[in-house]
Amino acid sequence: AINAQRLNDTLQLSCQWGSTPDGGMNRLALNDDDARVRRWYIEECQKVGCQVTVDAMGNIFAVRPGKNQGPPIAMGSHLDTQPTGGRYDGILGCLAALEVLRACHEAGYLTNHPLAAIVWTNEEGARFIPSMLGSAVWAGVKSLEFGQSRVDEGGVSVREELERHSFLGVRASSHQEIPLKAHFELHIEQGPILDTAAHPVAVVTGVQAFRWFEIKLQGRGSHAGTTPMHLRHNPLTAFCEMALSADQLAIQFGGLATIGRVGSLAAQSTNCILDDIVFHLDIRHHDDDKMDQLEAAVRVSFAQIAEKTLGVRLASWEALTASKGVQFDPLAVDCVRNACKAYPKQEIISGAGHDSVNTSKHCPTAMIFIRCKDGISHHPSEYSTREDIAVGGSVLLDAVCRYDST
Amino acid sequence: AINAQRLNDTLQLSCQWGSTPDGGMNRLALNDDDARVRRWYIEECQKVGCQVTVDAMGNIFAVRPGKNQGPPIAMGSHLDTQPTGGRYDGILGCLAALEVLRACHEAGYLTNHPLAAIVWTNEEGARFIPSMLGSAVWAGVKSLEFGQSRVDEGGVSVREELERHSFLGVRASSHQEIPLKAHFELHIEQGPILDTAAHPVAVVTGVQAFRWFEIKLQGRGSHAGTTPMHLRHNPLTAFCEMALSADQLAIQFGGLATIGRVGSLAAQSTNCILDDIVFHLDIRHHDDDKMDQLEAAVRVSFAQIAEKTLGVRLASWEALTASKGVQFDPLAVDCVRNACKAYPKQEIISGAGHDSVNTSKHCPTAMIFIRCKDGISHHPSEYSTREDIAVGGSVLLDAVCRYDST
Ligand SMILES: NC(=O)NCCC(=O)O
Ligand SMILES: NC(=O)NCCC(=O)O
Repeated sequence: AINAQRLNDTLQLSCQWGSTPDGGMNRLALNDDDARVRRWYIEECQKVGCQVTVDAMGNIFAVRPGKNQGPPIAMGSHLDTQPTGGRYDGILGCLAALEVLRACHEAGYLTNHPLAAIVWTNEEGARFIPSMLGSAVWAGVKSLEFGQSRVDEGGVSVREELERHSFLGVRASSHQEIPLKAHFELHIEQGPILDTAAHPVAVVTGVQAFRWFEIKLQGRGSHAGTTPMHLRHNPLTAFCEMALSADQLAIQFGGLATIGRVGSLAAQSTNCILDDIVFHLDIRHHDDDKMDQLEAAVRVSFAQIAEKTLGVRLASWEALTASKGVQFDPLAVDCVRNACKAYPKQEIISGAGHDSVNTSKHCPTAMIFIRCKDGISHHPSEYSTREDIAVGGSVLLDAVCRYDST
Repeated sequence: AINAQRLNDTLQLSCQWGSTPDGGMNRLALNDDDARVRRWYIEECQKVGCQVTVDAMGNIFAVRPGKNQGPPIAMGSHLDTQPTGGRYDGILGCLAALEVLRACHEAGYLTNHPLAAIVWTNEEGARFIPSMLGSAVWAGVKSLEFGQSRVDEGGVSVREELERHSFLGVRASSHQEIPLKAHFELHIEQGPILDTAAHPVAVVTGVQAFRWFEIKLQGRGSHAGTTPMHLRHNPLTAFCEMALSADQLAIQFGGLATIGRVGSLAAQSTNCILDDIVFHLDIRHHDDDKMDQLEAAVRVSFAQIAEKTLGVRLASWEALTASKGVQFDPLAVDCVRNACKAYPKQEIISGAGHDSVNTSKHCPTAMIFIRCKDGISHHPSEYSTREDIAVGGSVLLDAVCRYDST
């Protein structure tokens, strides 16, 4: 059994690196705090008999031997956060994995297969776009070159940061070089379903599709006091109509649309009509076909809005990343289902993307969700109770052991 | 008579400091390039017999003696630009003033009153908010303390920059300490009226009212993939409706509304619903009463939009600056009118604010506009022909001489 008190305490301890005064976290991938928590995490895994490997994307694999040789049953998640993130998203999964390793070590319990805790690099996609980057390279979804060359807003690359922190591992980042027997991920739900249903835990059967775009509108800056309303080439007017239209279309198609970044390339000034607008659009859907329809409808709508807005054009529309809907492995999901038996629970398709999306392409994968308060995530007020965290840790251990016995 | 060739050449020469590859200017108030062009300008004025005084706001007064003692007839404008500015806005007025001084010097022509060229500090309001700051302190519209304590986005104050460049003059910045007999300002129109009418020049009879506000919308950030559309507290949705409503109300009331700055205090991330939006609203009207009505209507509309948007509130609404409509001095305007006689011309109320708004509170003031291409300003493509610049310079000289003879 896991030590719930220790799991909770260690989770909070690990948040000393990158915590913010408002009780949240700002631990962007591969910044100094992320490097500190990673070094600490490696040491803690080594203390319980793990061999630690770091790959060329900085993904950390801490493996505890089992009775047999071969690929480990992995428990993975991430330690990076949003700039305005909470203390549970990703962090819970990594700390629960550590607790499972500690519990096995203390009990002297030897699994059939080796067990692994994995820290995937840059899951959030907040510092380096796109999200789930470390696991995407491992899975062959993105090339190593693509992964290492991503840059943050200051132009610093993943590779430079890996080198600076000595996290540029010699092992290839590849599911062939570092195969996994299975991948289990415990995560907070990040949405309101469990909280509304008053269920502490969920069996995650899959993950919905998502696509990210960077869109640029080119207008023409001019003087706020002298340019008549009907002669303006104002990209902001078009942008506002597009944002409202995306909201409406998402509702109409039963999906989601979010604009999380908006700004302009040209400098802004109070008495200047904006010259351009650049924004990111994130659309999601449970159904791949409906996703196609939603994207098509958004494209038609945005084109129409640009068309009718004097002097404003859709200058570029770049796909930043895309992930199809995923269904997890029936056997692995069954292990989670059985491990949850004692608790009020339900089945959920994840709204958020996770590293498990990538691992599912190469090994049996399943996820466990626990409830979070008001369904809020990517915000400092993100919160899960100690009791729910204890449930999640127990279910993770149980699911892994069940898989180990199959 | 002025030397039109020299005026045009010197204007272009002065743009060596702060020019951008796209042919525009980025010479924010009191940055290194602004300091360079100011030092050069002072030297050029001294070469034609001017005494130069700098006041505590860094306003430059270059005075050429006349037959009589007493306050000078001034020709003022500004050398600072927008970050995405052109080569004429403000610059033309200062360089034409220099050309008038040069022409008088060469001809050995002594006016009755002393003549002055003035460079007002931070007219644009792009680096330090609000606009027309140097002339506002001189006019007593803003206090010296207010003026010197304005900070740019990096937190650097006007006073620090004045000290750094040795432009913190010992003379009080005050219309009482440095009185003016009159103030004439030559400027590009910055709007489309003259270009549409095919008139090279305009008699400016006044300046419309304007008000600037900083408005903050507080929502609640959360996850783009897990937060259902109907549960979002999305400040962007409210912002977009507000921006479109401001456009509509400006049209309805016959005024202008512009949002030139928009961003958020919290960090942005592609997969996070925005937590807050902060933006600047600039509204203008020719009629002070209609301006009140426009502001009132915008306030009602924004309050209604915030009210109906789940979890989003109008967290703050700060007035950054306000300027009432101004009518210039009949006698000074008449001097301009007569000086324009030879040219196809018209009378205009300025859409943009100018330092002349502030001088008009303490001395007879008038302005001359010349045509600019397509009415575009605050943009690198801002342009006036050499011929129109020659007309503007001649009219300035003529108007000043006429006033000098009254
Ligand atoms: N778990 C999580 O928040 N991942 C971020 C990836 C996404 O869903 O955008
Ligand atoms: N002339 C000019 O562009 N001044 C800026 C002040 C304003 O906002 O109108």
